[in-house]
Amino acid sequence: MVDFQKTKEFFYIPKGLTYLCGNSLGPLPRNLPTVISNQLNEEWGQLLIGGWNKAGWMELSSKIGNRIGNLIGAPEGTTIMGDTLSIKVFQALGAALKLNPDRKIILTDAGNFPSDVYIAKGLAAFANRDYKVKIVDTKDIFGNMNENVAVLLLTEVDYKTGDRLESQNITLKAKSKGIITVWDLAHTVGAVTVDMQQIGADFAVGCTYKYLNGGPGSPAFIYINPDLISLSRSPITGWLGHANPFGFTLDYEPASTIKSQIIGTPPVISLSILNFALDIWDEVSLEEVYAKSMELSGLFIAGIKTKCPEMTVMSPENPAKRGSHVALGHPESYPLVRFLTEQSVICDYREPGILRFGIAPLYNDTEDIMGAVEVLAEALEFKPWKFERYQSRNYVT
Amino acid sequence: MVDFQKTKEFFYIPKGLTYLCGNSLGPLPRNLPTVISNQLNEEWGQLLIGGWNKAGWMELSSKIGNRIGNLIGAPEGTTIMGDTLSIKVFQALGAALKLNPDRKIILTDAGNFPSDVYIAKGLAAFANRDYKVKIVDTKDIFGNMNENVAVLLLTEVDYKTGDRLESQNITLKAKSKGIITVWDLAHTVGAVTVDMQQIGADFAVGCTYKYLNGGPGSPAFIYINPDLISLSRSPITGWLGHANPFGFTLDYEPASTIKSQIIGTPPVISLSILNFALDIWDEVSLEEVYAKSMELSGLFIAGIKTKCPEMTVMSPENPAKRGSHVALGHPESYPLVRFLTEQSVICDYREPGILRFGIAPLYNDTEDIMGAVEVLAEALEFKPWKFERYQSRNYVT
Repeated sequence: MVDFQKTKEFFYIPKGLTYLCGNSLGPLPRNLPTVISNQLNEEWGQLLIGGWNKAGWMELSSKIGNRIGNLIGAPEGTTIMGDTLSIKVFQALGAALKLNPDRKIILTDAGNFPSDVYIAKGLAAFANRDYKVKIVDTKDIFGNMNENVAVLLLTEVDYKTGDRLESQNITLKAKSKGIITVWDLAHTVGAVTVDMQQIGADFAVGCTYKYLNGGPGSPAFIYINPDLISLSRSPITGWLGHANPFGFTLDYEPASTIKSQIIGTPPVISLSILNFALDIWDEVSLEEVYAKSMELSGLFIAGIKTKCPEMTVMSPENPAKRGSHVALGHPESYPLVRFLTEQSVICDYREPGILRFGIAPLYNDTEDIMGAVEVLAEALEFKPWKFERYQSRNYVT
Repeated sequence: MVDFQKTKEFFYIPKGLTYLCGNSLGPLPRNLPTVISNQLNEEWGQLLIGGWNKAGWMELSSKIGNRIGNLIGAPEGTTIMGDTLSIKVFQALGAALKLNPDRKIILTDAGNFPSDVYIAKGLAAFANRDYKVKIVDTKDIFGNMNENVAVLLLTEVDYKTGDRLESQNITLKAKSKGIITVWDLAHTVGAVTVDMQQIGADFAVGCTYKYLNGGPGSPAFIYINPDLISLSRSPITGWLGHANPFGFTLDYEPASTIKSQIIGTPPVISLSILNFALDIWDEVSLEEVYAKSMELSGLFIAGIKTKCPEMTVMSPENPAKRGSHVALGHPESYPLVRFLTEQSVICDYREPGILRFGIAPLYNDTEDIMGAVEVLAEALEFKPWKFERYQSRNYVT
């Protein structure tokens, strides 16, 4: 049984703040500043260049990849860290297209995170192989899976609405049509349970600054199906993906392991911070965190429907169909977000007109949920959209 | 006048260590652990998601880009941070090739850092436009610049020998032949003076963990000639390079500024660490640091020739022709590096058979140089290659 009081203590949340924005940036692990300060002294300070071996810097990308792999159903040696999510999408797509050389279409949905779509379009344009990015309504994904599609690029939990896609059924159908799947787990990892190996996903990518609490801009990960690792060719072939990086030959020979997905020198300090933040997962099971999240988000939705009937609940009411954030709509959502922020209830705003409330049971509890509902109910009475200062758009999260 | 005693105090070097490896990893700024620990508490801890605006995280990539721009002759708004050097090479090459659409050859030299060559080959293969990577001997660069060459990709200071290329003459000739230039400044920035704008370079890229002391795996930078910024199209089009990232439209429209080179979410903590490490450059002029480096490396070369005649000096004796490290050759160079390390003289080994001694006057002084010569002279008497344990290759830097 997870002791959620204990997990709450792992993090620092400023007094009085109701933080419902972990879907964007998870909070600081309380002891991290001291730990990282000591580590900087002991590793970079004392070992200098020797840290690459003596402090295990060279192996951090694999080690952390395995830790994250545990949260997405990825066996050891199939997940590795580096760079940003956008770059991992680029790598996964590039490799996926080469695995399906006779097909030209990258299929995605209009609910996907725009950066994934931008990356797909940029890569398709650059590759000069008549690749086409086809964007369909989310409901039309199944109907558009056919023998012309090379790759299916989808985000498992919709960054706006919180809708979960049926990753198992979609992957199954994709397989039957010979389509390579690339799953973006940005809003999934550390929030809801998935099993990439069991559903037969080909590639998965994700970021670590949301529900994994790795800090602003912490490194991304890529998972490759064990059967495809040695066949997958990253379009970005940096020296640390080489079979023998320190041979310094001018011919590129990719590593036969997941290390082929490393590009340049790993961001050691960011990785060390993430590594510390992941320690909390040694204490809890994702299954219990997920169950608690569904309980809290159910409570939130029920509270909103009772006390804030003006709000539209945009996320699915069926818990099996939603991720770990709840999206609400209102004609004046922007001033509402600003007012809530002023009242120390932190959520965020996404175009067009969406308020997102991220629910992370590692540090959010019933009190947070009920408090947020109360403050939102007050806001609807106060009507912040009457006041010009709440309209000002110099506030972006 | 630079007070090199003061700059030395900015860094922490373990007692008794002669650190001549700043060409690989610069040392820890002494106060950094405390500063970054406080900053983690004050920014990530207190501001959480609000840090993007309130702590200026969103502007860090540009702000630090400008600071580094000052060291490479780049005007404000032409240099920006992100990712790794290999990824910046990929971006620069991708954009450069599109600027020269009728030509197919990426010209580089055999002395270039292998990762640059790997990236060029991977990109050429992926792009499917009959691009060809042509690798010539360094001495043949001039002779191979012709109207078939689209892009010239060179590293200004050779990572092995420390030779400096004639960046001004090369760029001038490239321009006359309609060739786009991409300069890798990995071993240049913070070590020797260059002026990218004055020589008319089109692109420049570099890393920050060597002479800029940003820590293991700190972020890279890219410079684009002001005339080309709005025309340069990164092949990796992530959301933060969009003209309006928070508009979240599915159509990619690049920023018209250098921000178009940002890909994903910036690595805030790594950037903050680098930002602190760069403070030392407010106290010193690169010109004086460079002059001191030439003085110290001259002293080193003279010492080696006198006291270690068995060693081959592989770096140019003419100071105008070398960067800030000195390369030495010996038939048994590997055990020599291992022995020197045991004697607390830190240099590094590069294939084939090269000992590299990085000289960074911000923290290296005459005593370091003369001490290293003495220990190397002792090593040559001791002959570590006679002992098996110095041969073991489980030591990589």
